[in-house]
Amino acid sequence: MRNFGAALVAVAALAASNCASASGRSQAQAGPLVIEKQGSFFAGGRVITAPGTYDPSRCPGAACPTPDGQTLHVDHTYVQYQIPPNPRDLPLVMWHGCLSTAWESTPDDREGYKSIFVRRGFAVYVIDQPRQGRSGKSSQGITITPTPGEQQNFNTWRLGIWPNFFPGVQFPQDPASIDHFFRQGGAVHGPGDAVVASDAVAALFARIGPGVLVTHSASGPLGWLTRIKSQNIRAIVAYEPGMPTFGGYLFPEGEVPPAMALTDGTMVSPGSPIPAADFQKLLQIPIQIILGDNIPTAPDPMPWRDAWRVRLMFARQFADAVNRHGGDATVLHLPEARVYGNTHFPFSDLNNVQVADLLSKYLGEKGLDRRGAAR
Amino acid sequence: MRNFGAALVAVAALAASNCASASGRSQAQAGPLVIEKQGSFFAGGRVITAPGTYDPSRCPGAACPTPDGQTLHVDHTYVQYQIPPNPRDLPLVMWHGCLSTAWESTPDDREGYKSIFVRRGFAVYVIDQPRQGRSGKSSQGITITPTPGEQQNFNTWRLGIWPNFFPGVQFPQDPASIDHFFRQGGAVHGPGDAVVASDAVAALFARIGPGVLVTHSASGPLGWLTRIKSQNIRAIVAYEPGMPTFGGYLFPEGEVPPAMALTDGTMVSPGSPIPAADFQKLLQIPIQIILGDNIPTAPDPMPWRDAWRVRLMFARQFADAVNRHGGDATVLHLPEARVYGNTHFPFSDLNNVQVADLLSKYLGEKGLDRRGAAR
Repeated sequence: MRNFGAALVAVAALAASNCASASGRSQAQAGPLVIEKQGSFFAGGRVITAPGTYDPSRCPGAACPTPDGQTLHVDHTYVQYQIPPNPRDLPLVMWHGCLSTAWESTPDDREGYKSIFVRRGFAVYVIDQPRQGRSGKSSQGITITPTPGEQQNFNTWRLGIWPNFFPGVQFPQDPASIDHFFRQGGAVHGPGDAVVASDAVAALFARIGPGVLVTHSASGPLGWLTRIKSQNIRAIVAYEPGMPTFGGYLFPEGEVPPAMALTDGTMVSPGSPIPAADFQKLLQIPIQIILGDNIPTAPDPMPWRDAWRVRLMFARQFADAVNRHGGDATVLHLPEARVYGNTHFPFSDLNNVQVADLLSKYLGEKGLDRRGAAR
Repeated sequence: MRNFGAALVAVAALAASNCASASGRSQAQAGPLVIEKQGSFFAGGRVITAPGTYDPSRCPGAACPTPDGQTLHVDHTYVQYQIPPNPRDLPLVMWHGCLSTAWESTPDDREGYKSIFVRRGFAVYVIDQPRQGRSGKSSQGITITPTPGEQQNFNTWRLGIWPNFFPGVQFPQDPASIDHFFRQGGAVHGPGDAVVASDAVAALFARIGPGVLVTHSASGPLGWLTRIKSQNIRAIVAYEPGMPTFGGYLFPEGEVPPAMALTDGTMVSPGSPIPAADFQKLLQIPIQIILGDNIPTAPDPMPWRDAWRVRLMFARQFADAVNRHGGDATVLHLPEARVYGNTHFPFSDLNNVQVADLLSKYLGEKGLDRRGAAR
């Protein structure tokens, strides 16, 4: 069992392979989108300054050979936003996991969560996690080595057992869609770091004010950490939280459930202990955790499938701990709601409008979809 | 003088430091934006397959330790698009240079070219060049080392002479704007490659059909290369083309003007020779090259300033060569049009609506802003 502080320091490098791991009722996806304001900005981060004094006469060309006295702005998060006219009070902040672009378009070129929820009246902020995608300039260097691994992703992300799709899976099976799917991700230019990432997203919430955080996969654990840093996070909706990266689920000290063995003997911990005062901050907001279909119900000989059986148990252990202490956490295992065939990407699956309707329903039930309400 | 073929092979790695290097008349930027369809996709690229056979039983976890028989989809370009209702016939494809996000918002959070030209009725496609930004998965590895260099960028990009801005410069001088500006860029996760980049953008034009290519800085030279590969590029508007990366300007064999010496003795070539049949493809479309203000008119002791004097001459030499052979190239040096104070980023400077009006005017004059015209 790792101590939470240690987990923050000894964070694993982010990689796609780590990724195994809303409101207004349904409205037609037809007709134009109307945007009051859109754009992008950067939140959080810090500035590195090299020792010495900058002397432009020592720079023979555009690429100055010496960093002396010069700065580098690093470790921020890039944020792209769209705000509809008369938006609901609480924006949605969408934080990617494995695939930073999966909020935008589905593999078969339908609308993703970004457009769907702007249509439903929410301001939407889509971030690129620090050191990924359009968040450039990292304080830490990295060496990137291209490594094929997409067939394992296909399996781990529960599209099927390569090269076969699961019967009834909510995933388009034409070559163009598969090509789109596999071309996503891999836009990493610095090591993953839970402190850097949660600091930057907390800075985003300091800038935009109260909102709902929507996480996916590897950003799931980061979402809990960020809530501890930002009271402006008024709810968290976590799709398929990644495990066990970035500390996993958080529990009060002394209450972390035991690690469990996968079928190959690998021991996996449900999460990390945090002080009671920090855990309290997770009790103040509604939390929903959503998991898709094709999760084994009994031990599975393939450990990467078996891990999902264990992750579903861990999600329930976390929700139980939150509720036991007076919080409000629910686990929505989609097949139990008669929604079948979802992969690791319910928000971009073939039935993503149906999945979005469930988010709208949840936000409505929790009073998170209001306009003009006192905060 | 490099041969063009050699230039394609011996391409320099892309880095921000390499970066030293539209129609519908003006309408109010007020009122909502209306979008018929928006989203993102990937164009071009290829697939790497590791030797061997994929065996999922050999994968103990999400991160399969062996790439055997697995694929990696690489070297594509990410494309984010917005299409207004009843768009003009020719979309604008915006290809970044140093700062991939500079088409979206200005440093002081006004609308960038993307929103401005969607408002003016154009479909806009903003790309992230292969191996940068949201275009992940490179076929070639890279080691990234954070290196401060922003003060030199400030100087090379003609904001002023650090820490002083040029008098009358069209750049916001408040701390938040400067912070935004410096946080852009640096989102590189693979080596720059002119063949990879131009192939991917040619594939984009094959998908979307005829359009106008808008380049900036380092993508300027890549734009000429891409036109040779794609007849669907119906015009090129190049802001402050980068030099001498990626082969520079292109000239018929035997007609490359002589290299010129900067004040520190560095010899700089205006470009690369290409076969007459390829040069012919640059004669078939309107080409406009735009350069901003504060370009020295006489040799300057600072070579990174002096380089702009030479770049302006090179732009004119290229336009002269195109026009001499029957093409249609113009150089718009903004101060000669009584537009003053522009930096290396005219499209996001304080007067970017005025600069956009000049693009609208050009597109109108060249018949590139029509609706419902035969192509």
